[in-house]
Amino acid sequence: MASSMTFIFICAVLVFFMTPGLAFFYGGMVPQKQINNTLMSVFIMCSIPVLLWVIGGYSLSFSGNHWNLIGDFHNLMLNHLNLAAPSVAAGGKISNAAFLLFQMMFAIITPALFVGAIVGRMNFKFLISFVILWSIFVYYPLVHLVWGGGFLQSFGALDFAGGLVVHIDAGVTALILAYFLGPRLVQQKGSPKNLSWVLLGTAMLWVGWYGFNAGSALSMNSVAMQAMLTTTVATATAMLTWMVLDVFTKRNATLFGVCSGAICGLVAITPACGFVSVAAALWIGLVATLVSYFFITTVKPLLKIDDTLDAFGCHGVSGIVGSIMTGLFASKSINAAVTSNGLFAGGGWHQLGLQLGATGFTILYTAVIVTLIILVLKQIIRMRISSAAEKLQEDWDA
Amino acid sequence: MASSMTFIFICAVLVFFMTPGLAFFYGGMVPQKQINNTLMSVFIMCSIPVLLWVIGGYSLSFSGNHWNLIGDFHNLMLNHLNLAAPSVAAGGKISNAAFLLFQMMFAIITPALFVGAIVGRMNFKFLISFVILWSIFVYYPLVHLVWGGGFLQSFGALDFAGGLVVHIDAGVTALILAYFLGPRLVQQKGSPKNLSWVLLGTAMLWVGWYGFNAGSALSMNSVAMQAMLTTTVATATAMLTWMVLDVFTKRNATLFGVCSGAICGLVAITPACGFVSVAAALWIGLVATLVSYFFITTVKPLLKIDDTLDAFGCHGVSGIVGSIMTGLFASKSINAAVTSNGLFAGGGWHQLGLQLGATGFTILYTAVIVTLIILVLKQIIRMRISSAAEKLQEDWDA
Amino acid sequence: MASSMTFIFICAVLVFFMTPGLAFFYGGMVPQKQINNTLMSVFIMCSIPVLLWVIGGYSLSFSGNHWNLIGDFHNLMLNHLNLAAPSVAAGGKISNAAFLLFQMMFAIITPALFVGAIVGRMNFKFLISFVILWSIFVYYPLVHLVWGGGFLQSFGALDFAGGLVVHIDAGVTALILAYFLGPRLVQQKGSPKNLSWVLLGTAMLWVGWYGFNAGSALSMNSVAMQAMLTTTVATATAMLTWMVLDVFTKRNATLFGVCSGAICGLVAITPACGFVSVAAALWIGLVATLVSYFFITTVKPLLKIDDTLDAFGCHGVSGIVGSIMTGLFASKSINAAVTSNGLFAGGGWHQLGLQLGATGFTILYTAVIVTLIILVLKQIIRMRISSAAEKLQEDWDA
Repeated sequence: MASSMTFIFICAVLVFFMTPGLAFFYGGMVPQKQINNTLMSVFIMCSIPVLLWVIGGYSLSFSGNHWNLIGDFHNLMLNHLNLAAPSVAAGGKISNAAFLLFQMMFAIITPALFVGAIVGRMNFKFLISFVILWSIFVYYPLVHLVWGGGFLQSFGALDFAGGLVVHIDAGVTALILAYFLGPRLVQQKGSPKNLSWVLLGTAMLWVGWYGFNAGSALSMNSVAMQAMLTTTVATATAMLTWMVLDVFTKRNATLFGVCSGAICGLVAITPACGFVSVAAALWIGLVATLVSYFFITTVKPLLKIDDTLDAFGCHGVSGIVGSIMTGLFASKSINAAVTSNGLFAGGGWHQLGLQLGATGFTILYTAVIVTLIILVLKQIIRMRISSAAEKLQEDWDA
Repeated sequence: MASSMTFIFICAVLVFFMTPGLAFFYGGMVPQKQINNTLMSVFIMCSIPVLLWVIGGYSLSFSGNHWNLIGDFHNLMLNHLNLAAPSVAAGGKISNAAFLLFQMMFAIITPALFVGAIVGRMNFKFLISFVILWSIFVYYPLVHLVWGGGFLQSFGALDFAGGLVVHIDAGVTALILAYFLGPRLVQQKGSPKNLSWVLLGTAMLWVGWYGFNAGSALSMNSVAMQAMLTTTVATATAMLTWMVLDVFTKRNATLFGVCSGAICGLVAITPACGFVSVAAALWIGLVATLVSYFFITTVKPLLKIDDTLDAFGCHGVSGIVGSIMTGLFASKSINAAVTSNGLFAGGGWHQLGLQLGATGFTILYTAVIVTLIILVLKQIIRMRISSAAEKLQEDWDA
Repeated sequence: MASSMTFIFICAVLVFFMTPGLAFFYGGMVPQKQINNTLMSVFIMCSIPVLLWVIGGYSLSFSGNHWNLIGDFHNLMLNHLNLAAPSVAAGGKISNAAFLLFQMMFAIITPALFVGAIVGRMNFKFLISFVILWSIFVYYPLVHLVWGGGFLQSFGALDFAGGLVVHIDAGVTALILAYFLGPRLVQQKGSPKNLSWVLLGTAMLWVGWYGFNAGSALSMNSVAMQAMLTTTVATATAMLTWMVLDVFTKRNATLFGVCSGAICGLVAITPACGFVSVAAALWIGLVATLVSYFFITTVKPLLKIDDTLDAFGCHGVSGIVGSIMTGLFASKSINAAVTSNGLFAGGGWHQLGLQLGATGFTILYTAVIVTLIILVLKQIIRMRISSAAEKLQEDWDA
């Protein structure tokens, strides 16, 4: 167990590193006066979601199983949990403490993702309250459904490292938050100004993603290495795809474009990485980037929803593509945990149907609950900062 | 041994990463013209202390034991040291080379901490000379006393990852250096301007701290994972505490505040992390932040000592709180190396007394020796740069 | 094998981290208007060389052996490669997937190195095309010759982690590219302006270099730890050396100087790190920095080649010094893979001769092939951007 735990230790550290990485990725895109607030809104996720996870999140996600829907309160405040004992939820490969910590890092980064949709105009108190309710009513249930013994898992839906659990729910949440919040008063002109920070964020995310994807094998084995390999190939392909699209449509490669492409590739391969071949990774990186690029440049302007930093366009869309394409390429020869081969791996339509169903359910569930949370919370806490404050954001972090 | 050494390898790399992280944490706080000099003053610790450690530091710290006070010269220049053999000082878990390297990273970061107290006005030659003398007369003796078989260790004082050895001595040194050096000629107005760099530094420190704290178990086991867990919980609590204090006193959360809180939490849990429960970690993060916040905002202005970037207020104060609270919460049920339970763990006053004694001794010893070093060194090398140079710092690194 | 693969996993992640680190190291040195283009030119190496490596690079480097010169096409597109099986090329210590990934990271960073010579004036299409041809005709053959069973390896030339394969070929390529490209129209005045980014790049490179050098042992053992130790000591020495040179010649230590010194030390110890003692590391760091410093300040101005960011002066020169000095200090007592002790380790001139020969061959081979590639490619693709574009670089990444 010591060797697996060393592996999970470093993977958990890598996943932790992603959240400040995301802060810089987003912070580099916003106008100067919004940088500090954007960074803080992401970085605060290293605090509150950690405490929530210890208090009840772990228990609701992984302790027991009520009606295949949700865990129980048995491990509330980590009570009755032998931290040093092998984790049943992790197949006994690592200790409860190790599994708790690795999963904690996912509970930090996921709500951080949708900050990208609301920068510069959401009331900080609303954000904090929303994150708490969202963790309880959206995130922990989805973790349980997909990884903790819930019905999506028992039906055989595949999500290796968090397409449904991390990217699709965060992306859909971003879209709905942006819809209710309304657009910025003043739209940013031109491309982002602090691209060095965008690249730093991209690099930190990519590096951390190796912990995210390979670590989801929960011990070092051929599946973990396959996940690292497919992650790299999908991301390289996605970078190149976005660059070529930029050259064709804008006549120039851009740093912002290769960074955006890299993130789309990383997102799209996440649900598939430990189930598919290297060739499949290439296709997933390519298709996801095409769809995200099309959505961001063509569909989004029609929607008139100000998902400011494309949290949905990137994480949501590429997450959906990756989750569905897992049903095309998943293969028992890569990972014995696959019970039904994907369509292109000779297994017929079964797995693809499951992936479509699970993806659709996650979108719908998230959309409904998020809408309810917003409608209730708006009655209690102001959702948006005042117009005056929005225009004078230099005073926010003085 | 290979599995433990893989663990220590990555932990040593993580601890190394902290020193440039500290450079950015400090560099982000100073005025534009002082940035390069601040970065260099921290980064140079990756050079001179490395060589000192190889020349004699390791030997004085871990080879032999004279009068329970100090090591010997047997491993001078790494002579007589079989690098591939299991390290006796590390309980045989890892090789001498691995232990030497892991401890080397601590010898780098510790003197870097007090640079925060003297930025913008200390003569670089004085700093270098001081670091050399300080390593020999303060750091190596303290390492020996606490971890190398000295009397603090044999009495049973607990310091899991460096409260006494790293934070308290560095913090006290910072305070005394700032006292002798005198305040800056021109005080900075307003909050730090480069908060992106402060956050980057905080993130690098936090990530590296996992290597610092978990790595101090010297192999991957349940104590290492406990250290990672308590570190995360204490830091999350400390962040939230500082944020709430900011909201109450300044009406706004600030990015600088959550970063400062995070560092206080990381510092405070360091001596305790492998000895205490998750609940204890929460209390330690909370109390340390309250005390550091109170010191920095209320006590420090009365002292009229210009500890510019709060090296004492943060590292010293939170280190002292954490070291003492280890005597409240240390528990044999968490770590068999605890010989006497803390006060709140049912062990009576014994361990608390030891922690108070060891903390008091470390403060006093450091204060006396640092004062002596400064008084002697001032006779030889000018301590402070000229007023003209201080006002024209753009020429410093031209 | 799981323990070794955990080690190689983290080492591969660390080496990956170096490429964005290099982007910041270079990006921090160029004028504001060239930053984005410089960052992109480096970061794009995380895409195209990844795909090339998977398509044919791995196969040409490590599959089979034709005439002791080059591999074959057996593993083209990773065909016939059992990713989960132990890698023969890696001595069976890790799986094929793990070895493929670790080596992939080297194939990314190496072409990124020579971007430093051409910033601000090379046509992006020329750069991309050149990287593809260079990988096929320079990089894969050299990997095969030194590590894949080619004649340099069978003759006994030593290159622990990539002096010949990474630094010398990249450095020589940089020099020749700069020669054919011609100097910048407008020379930058004064020292680099964004030194915070230079330090960040240096720190990321240093941290990643531990994966590069220690990881080249391919499993955690005493040689890996020796490599980490010699790497640290050589780099610390090199930093100090450059600082002292700066103090003597410019009367001031500079942040840029200590960063440059660190890189020289890291480069120089790379071919030697797993073969030499700590004392040897000190000498290698010292001599390489002296020679690089002398080259950059004295020789380069005479050459009138605008190797803009000293890719040759730093990587080429220190790489050559390190490669040759491996022939002085390599010792069987450190690493049983050394077949003939170096000159100062009592083995006579044999190993030194081999190192001189291998170094000379690498320089010549690279110079000839690079010249041919440039001469051909220039006929097809414009090498340099227009003077107007060079002067108006703000439009490049708009």
